[in-house]
Amino acid sequence: MIKHVVLLTWKDSTSQDQIDAVTSAFRALGDEIAEVVSYSFGEDVGIYRGNADYALIAEFQNEADLKAYVVHPSHQELLSNITGPILDSFLSVQFGAAE
Amino acid sequence: MIKHVVLLTWKDSTSQDQIDAVTSAFRALGDEIAEVVSYSFGEDVGIYRGNADYALIAEFQNEADLKAYVVHPSHQELLSNITGPILDSFLSVQFGAAE
Repeated sequence: MIKHVVLLTWKDSTSQDQIDAVTSAFRALGDEIAEVVSYSFGEDVGIYRGNADYALIAEFQNEADLKAYVVHPSHQELLSNITGPILDSFLSVQFGAAE
Repeated sequence: MIKHVVLLTWKDSTSQDQIDAVTSAFRALGDEIAEVVSYSFGEDVGIYRGNADYALIAEFQNEADLKAYVVHPSHQELLSNITGPILDSFLSVQFGAAE
């Protein structure tokens, strides 16, 4: 199993509606792409300062499935149309989960 | 449920032994602290450039349990003795997981 983690920081001008659109888009994407084993996402709850704004955790059986997800047209569209316009920065890791 | 995600980037001088010590320490910590519901961690597998080096995902029933974990002496010791000396930067999010 491989876990794909992305932490996203939005531009200061980002509206709550645009963030809600990200949540809706991730929800649809997680359901659409067969390779996704588990998919959780959400806004930072604001407990600690200096955090990113949003997190996505996706799980895949293997690297091939992760790569299929990354290049999937719907994922690419989400990057271009939903997260891209409001994205300031992101940081990611993919790891083989040692539990 | 609240998910606590941390992406860590090590100093360039970090050895594999020091990273292995992080993995061992996280394994022990996850078992020791009762509030931890699930705990997964690991090194970036190197598929994509520009990633952080390591990820930790921890799950808690609620914010109070997360805060108890953060201030727990064993967690504080891990930060001081294991990750602190090799840490270049980290980024974190805590989110209420919308699945």
